[in-house]
Amino acid sequence: MEWNRGRAEESSGDALGYVVERLEAARGVVPLLGRLSSLRKDRALIAMRDALWRRQGEVLAANGRDTALARQAGMDAARLDRLRLTEGRVQAMLDGLEAVTALADPVGEQIEAFARPNGLRIAKVRVPLGVVAVIYESRPNVTVDAAAIGFKAGSAVVLRGGSEARHSNRALVAALHEGLEAAGIPPEAVVLLDRGGREAVSHLIAARGLVDLVIPRGGAGLIRHVAENARVPVVETGVGNCHVYVDCQADLGKAAAIVLNAKCQRPSVCNALETLLVHREVAGALLGELGPELGAAGVAVRACPGAHAILSGVPGLELAPATPADWETEYLAPVLAVRVVDDLDAGLEHIRRYSTRHSEAIVTEDRAAARRFLAEVDAAVVYHNASTRFTDGGEFGYGVEMGISTQVLHARGPLGLKELTSYKYVVEGEGQVREGAWAAPAPVPG
Amino acid sequence: MEWNRGRAEESSGDALGYVVERLEAARGVVPLLGRLSSLRKDRALIAMRDALWRRQGEVLAANGRDTALARQAGMDAARLDRLRLTEGRVQAMLDGLEAVTALADPVGEQIEAFARPNGLRIAKVRVPLGVVAVIYESRPNVTVDAAAIGFKAGSAVVLRGGSEARHSNRALVAALHEGLEAAGIPPEAVVLLDRGGREAVSHLIAARGLVDLVIPRGGAGLIRHVAENARVPVVETGVGNCHVYVDCQADLGKAAAIVLNAKCQRPSVCNALETLLVHREVAGALLGELGPELGAAGVAVRACPGAHAILSGVPGLELAPATPADWETEYLAPVLAVRVVDDLDAGLEHIRRYSTRHSEAIVTEDRAAARRFLAEVDAAVVYHNASTRFTDGGEFGYGVEMGISTQVLHARGPLGLKELTSYKYVVEGEGQVREGAWAAPAPVPG
Repeated sequence: MEWNRGRAEESSGDALGYVVERLEAARGVVPLLGRLSSLRKDRALIAMRDALWRRQGEVLAANGRDTALARQAGMDAARLDRLRLTEGRVQAMLDGLEAVTALADPVGEQIEAFARPNGLRIAKVRVPLGVVAVIYESRPNVTVDAAAIGFKAGSAVVLRGGSEARHSNRALVAALHEGLEAAGIPPEAVVLLDRGGREAVSHLIAARGLVDLVIPRGGAGLIRHVAENARVPVVETGVGNCHVYVDCQADLGKAAAIVLNAKCQRPSVCNALETLLVHREVAGALLGELGPELGAAGVAVRACPGAHAILSGVPGLELAPATPADWETEYLAPVLAVRVVDDLDAGLEHIRRYSTRHSEAIVTEDRAAARRFLAEVDAAVVYHNASTRFTDGGEFGYGVEMGISTQVLHARGPLGLKELTSYKYVVEGEGQVREGAWAAPAPVPG
Repeated sequence: MEWNRGRAEESSGDALGYVVERLEAARGVVPLLGRLSSLRKDRALIAMRDALWRRQGEVLAANGRDTALARQAGMDAARLDRLRLTEGRVQAMLDGLEAVTALADPVGEQIEAFARPNGLRIAKVRVPLGVVAVIYESRPNVTVDAAAIGFKAGSAVVLRGGSEARHSNRALVAALHEGLEAAGIPPEAVVLLDRGGREAVSHLIAARGLVDLVIPRGGAGLIRHVAENARVPVVETGVGNCHVYVDCQADLGKAAAIVLNAKCQRPSVCNALETLLVHREVAGALLGELGPELGAAGVAVRACPGAHAILSGVPGLELAPATPADWETEYLAPVLAVRVVDDLDAGLEHIRRYSTRHSEAIVTEDRAAARRFLAEVDAAVVYHNASTRFTDGGEFGYGVEMGISTQVLHARGPLGLKELTSYKYVVEGEGQVREGAWAAPAPVPG
C-alpha cells in the first residue's frame, strides 16, 4: 500500500490555495472544451502526439532522474518496473494518442428522443462530465492515456500522479501542453497537480462544485482512501479478486489454458486470476495437469486440504495450505489460491462471498451451468470459457481506457469514452406550461 | 433545514448493530430479487397495492397520530401539509403502484452486443443495483413510491423517512410487507429503518459493501449532509435554483405564461422558477405585464435596480431590492428574483454562476439564440419555450420517479426505472486466452 507511506515532506502550507487555483483554471475552460468540434479535438490530439514524439528524449531523461532517485530510495523491483519508461513504452503512449484520435466523438450524440402528448419534444444528448480528476501512482503512461481520453470526451482533466514520477509527469504534460497550444486550445484542459503533498489530495477530493468526478487508479489502499474520504463523486477502479470456476463438465484442456493465461500472462494487473475453484469430480485430473505447469511458471499455490492432497509431491511447485485470508487476497503476483468445491452452488457461494465484482469466469461445456453462472454472478464482467484477462478497454474495442470500474453506479468494467460522459435532456416546446391546480401561496419558510 | 435540527432524543446506543442487521437482511435477498421474473414482480406490486387499499384506514389513522404530534410540537403549516395524508393522497400512492406495475421491466434488457475479432461475444445486460437506500423527510408518499420503483428495478430498498412521519411509514410498510408476503417474496425486499436517530443515518451512509446507492431526497441541508459524509455512492437530488431567461426575441405572451406557471403552479418544489432573467429590450414590456399578475398571485419580487424601477408602483406587489444572496437562493416559496440583463451572454453568464444544474429555460423565437442556450447551459434539463415545471418523471413518461438528479455522474434529471439499474458485461468464448508476452514472474510484494 504505497498510499499509506508518509509524504509529509512534500506537504505545503498553501496546498488549499494551490489546488483551488488549479481547479478553477480547469473549470474555467470547461464551457470551451464542451463546445469544441470533433475536428478540433482530433487536431489537438495529433498535435499532442507530435509534441510528445519530438520531446521523447526529454521525457526519457526526466524518467531517468525519477528512476535513479527511486532506486536510491530503495524502491522494489516491481514498482521500479512500473515507473520506468522505455522507447517502447513511449511508443505505446504515442499509439494510444493515435487510437483516441481515431475513436468516434461521443459528445453531442443523441441517445434517445421522444415526444410527449402535450407536444414537448425531449432529446437525451451526451455531454461532457466537466472536470475529471485522476489520482494514480507510479505508472507515467496514465498521464498521457487519461489526458487523451478525458480531452476527447470533452472534459478538463486534472492529473495527480505519484511523487516518484514527478519529473516524468512534468515532461509528459509539457509535451501535451505544447500540442494543445499549437492547436489553439488553452493548456488548462490538462492540469497537472504536482505540489502540496497528501494535503493537496485531501483538498482535491473535497472540492465539491469544482470537480465532477474523481477516479482513483492504483492499489487498494489508494482506492479505499479516496472512496472513504471524497466529497465529490468517485468511480472506484481496479481491485480484482478474480475467480475461475472449473465445472465438472469442463473441457479440461480449455480450463488449463484459461487458468494459466489468467494467472500468468500478467500477474500484476487487476484482471489476473487470484483464486481457482474446481469441482471435486475434475479436481484430480485438472490439478494433476496444472500442478507441474504452475510450478514451471513459478506460481506458488495456496491450497485447500483437498487441493493440497492432490498437489503435494508435484516437483518444483511451491505449495502451502490456504488460510482464510487467502480467499480475500488480491495477490497481484504469481501466487494462486486453489479450492476444491462440491458443486456449482458452492462455487457461486464462494464467489458471492469473496468477489470484488471485477471479473469472474466459468469453464464448462454445460450450457445450463454457464447460464446460471452468467446470470447469478454479480461482477462487472462475467465470462464463459474465456480468460479474465480480457477485461480491458483495448480488448473490448474501446481504445484506451481510464480504468476498470468495480462499482455498480455510473459505469461498470472498462471506462471508455462513453463512460466518461454524462447526458442532458433538451426539451423544446411552443409555450407549454404544466397543468394542475394553481397552488395557494404558502408562507415563506425560515 | 429540517435536517439540522437536533434529534439526539431518538438516538440509541446500539444504532450500529441495528443498521448492520437490517442492511444485511436486505443484502441477503438481493440475489433472489435479481432473479425474479417480471411477472412475479408485477404480481407482488399488485398484491402491495391491494394490501395498501385494504389498510388505508390504518394508514390514515397512523398519519393522524403523526400530524397531531407534529402540530403539538409547533410544526409550520407548509411542513404539516407535506406530512398530511388524505384519501386523495393515498389514492395517488395506489395509482403509483399501478403505474409501476405497467412499466416495462428494465432488468435483463440487452443494451448492446458485439463480437470481437478473436470470436468473443460481448453483451451489455441491464442488472439491478443491489441495495438502494433512500433518506427523506416528511412526505410519506416517498415510502411507497421508492419501494415500488426500487422493487421493480430489482433492488432491495432501504427506507429512512423523517421521524415526524414514523407512524405513517410503519403503517405503509406493514401494508407493503403484507403484499410481498402474499406474493411469496421475503419482506426484506423493503426495509424500514426507523430507529437509531441520526446515528443510524451516519452508519447507513458509511456502509460500504452493504449499500450500493444512497439517494437523499429533501431539503438542501439533508442533501449536503449526505453528499459530504457518505462513504457509499450517492446520487444527489433536488436542489433547483432554476432560471427562465426571456430573450429580446421572445413572444411575450408565452414568456409571461411560462414565468407565472414556473413560479406559481407549485412554488415549493425543486423545478419551480426562482430567478427571472429578462433582456433589457423587453424588460419594460414583460415586467409591465407580469407585475400586476405576480402581485395578484401573492408573489413577492426581489428586483435588480433596473427591474425595481419598472416594477415600483405596481399596486399590490410586494417589491424589495435584490441582494447578491437572492441570486443564490432556492426560495421554494412565492418569491421571485428578477434581473434585467444586457444580452444572451449576460444571461448565460448569470446562469453559469448561480445554476444548481437542475432546470433552465429560454423563451425566444430566435432559433440561433435557443440553440446556443440549449447547447451551452449545463443542467439536467434545458428548455426552449416551456415551463421548468416539466422536469418530472411523470411528465417525461417515466411513471413514478425516485427524485431528480442534479449531479452529472450516473444519471441526470428524473430517476426512473432505468436510472435505478446498472449493467454487466456477459462474455462468451470457446476457450480464448489473451495473447502477448508471458510476464516474467515478479517478486511477491510486501
